[in-house]
Amino acid sequence: MRVSTADVFEATQNDLDLVEQRLLQAARIDYPVVSSLVNGLVATGGKRLRPLLLLLASKAFTYDRDRAITAAAGVELLHTASLVHDDNIDRAALRRGQPTLNTQLSSGAVILIGDYLFAQSAILAAATESVRVVAIFASTLGAICDGQLLETLQAHDLGQDRASYEKRIYGKTASLFAGAAEMGAVIGQATETEIAEMRDFGGDIGMAFQIVDDILDLREGTQVLGKPAGNDLRQGVVTLPTMLYAATLAQDSPQREVLERIVAGEETDDAVIGSVIDAVRASGAIDQAERIAGEYSASARNRLRIVRDESVRRQLDEIVDLTVIRSY
Amino acid sequence: MRVSTADVFEATQNDLDLVEQRLLQAARIDYPVVSSLVNGLVATGGKRLRPLLLLLASKAFTYDRDRAITAAAGVELLHTASLVHDDNIDRAALRRGQPTLNTQLSSGAVILIGDYLFAQSAILAAATESVRVVAIFASTLGAICDGQLLETLQAHDLGQDRASYEKRIYGKTASLFAGAAEMGAVIGQATETEIAEMRDFGGDIGMAFQIVDDILDLREGTQVLGKPAGNDLRQGVVTLPTMLYAATLAQDSPQREVLERIVAGEETDDAVIGSVIDAVRASGAIDQAERIAGEYSASARNRLRIVRDESVRRQLDEIVDLTVIRSY
Repeated sequence: MRVSTADVFEATQNDLDLVEQRLLQAARIDYPVVSSLVNGLVATGGKRLRPLLLLLASKAFTYDRDRAITAAAGVELLHTASLVHDDNIDRAALRRGQPTLNTQLSSGAVILIGDYLFAQSAILAAATESVRVVAIFASTLGAICDGQLLETLQAHDLGQDRASYEKRIYGKTASLFAGAAEMGAVIGQATETEIAEMRDFGGDIGMAFQIVDDILDLREGTQVLGKPAGNDLRQGVVTLPTMLYAATLAQDSPQREVLERIVAGEETDDAVIGSVIDAVRASGAIDQAERIAGEYSASARNRLRIVRDESVRRQLDEIVDLTVIRSY
Repeated sequence: MRVSTADVFEATQNDLDLVEQRLLQAARIDYPVVSSLVNGLVATGGKRLRPLLLLLASKAFTYDRDRAITAAAGVELLHTASLVHDDNIDRAALRRGQPTLNTQLSSGAVILIGDYLFAQSAILAAATESVRVVAIFASTLGAICDGQLLETLQAHDLGQDRASYEKRIYGKTASLFAGAAEMGAVIGQATETEIAEMRDFGGDIGMAFQIVDDILDLREGTQVLGKPAGNDLRQGVVTLPTMLYAATLAQDSPQREVLERIVAGEETDDAVIGSVIDAVRASGAIDQAERIAGEYSASARNRLRIVRDESVRRQLDEIVDLTVIRSY
């Protein structure tokens, strides 16, 4: 996290440390080798945006510290579990610059460790003793799986529209941000209107987050991402910038034909893929995607009017920044 | 189900049909191909012992029909989800005589469908609106994953003792029977003593069920199992009969050496494996394992003294029979 932002979150840092402790406790496994791998995975976790969002969405109303910390740990663990399965499905070797579990364990063991972490996250959700929090938790898990299934089943098809892209990334990514903010507000005993607004706030930043992710995958290279540019493209996953670039191409142009072959997995030559990435960058599609991400952040910021506590509002505003102004 | 047992369960059949409907609803997926596969999987489900157990454990006290049916559907769907991941891990092509999802979909899609079914089962658990039921549900999922992880991590090692075998099959199989019975009793507003007794009843029949499963894998052949005998052995999974057989062999005997090589995955010749299976059958290890399964069923039956309703008690007694007297 940037030094400048650490100050803004100072008021929440203690609670975030407690989330960290609960996370590590919950991810404990009895087998020495697996245990140290899972611990490493959990400890080197990313920016903790989701638990931070949950804590703040709760602090914005009547803060129930214990419950919020428990739910926040549950949300982060759910996210971790889903990354474990994702990396297994993509056969990814690296995540956040660290070797994934795939490189050290059989595929079967990795699937089961993902399941185990799902179970532990559900145990944390149940520990809030709030039926509503558990229901949000379960339906969020459903939405994530649905989005990931959509991604898998829609892969290799360039003929997708923006609506299906948005539905897919809402499920895959935004639903957990929405769910985290909603759980926070529910734990904070907010009114139904406030809960709905916080949920949409989370949904908006989740959408912005994923669009920025999809942009980074095409705009940056190995140095920044720790993997070559165009990873989605290579997997046949059509993201917003690619979609916007495709819209600039005539139906039977050679450029479109080459793009179609890459998405279909028929063209895997690095030089050809590299030249298509250059063309996407030059087409203005990335700027256009950035503008769309910006619309989601603006919508998110607009919803913060309902938060009366100034410090909490400033922190939530900073989360909006963190989702869009980032390099990984 | 045998005709003779259908009569015994007649009083519960209507509710079991409602469980079936909730199951099919919950497993609905938006994609035509996947949907029909998942529907097929759910509809051709096994003997529905777990939901039956939950319904009866609830009926034994103050029956809350709606809640019990919802939880029963959740338990069966959790079981189905776990089979989907199991079959993916084992790369099994057949389950209950039907082709598994593995034969029709990519491994990634199968993992995600398993996750999706886990999510739907958690949504059903949450729909009971009982914090306690959800907590049992989540910790049961944790226990199942733990048992399956144990099986994977302990595979290929003949030097296991019976305690570690029992711990492993309790997690993998008995925990869900125990959880189902416990949830039923909780929904039925039983006393804490009654809840604990029903939980242990479920645990006992779950242990018997898995031991019988392990016996069948060695005693029967393709005709009965739909797969060749000794599947566990081929996967390096050491089960009770194998363990009991190994105990009859001298440490440096050629028979023990050959068994060790099969478990280690170094010996895959069908004729050699067949001769070891014959030796297990001839050693008395299978009879001994049957006696141990019988002890668990006797313990289960003994716990039924707490059930006052005669029809419910008879049905629960029949479940004990069904777990041990079966050919698949």
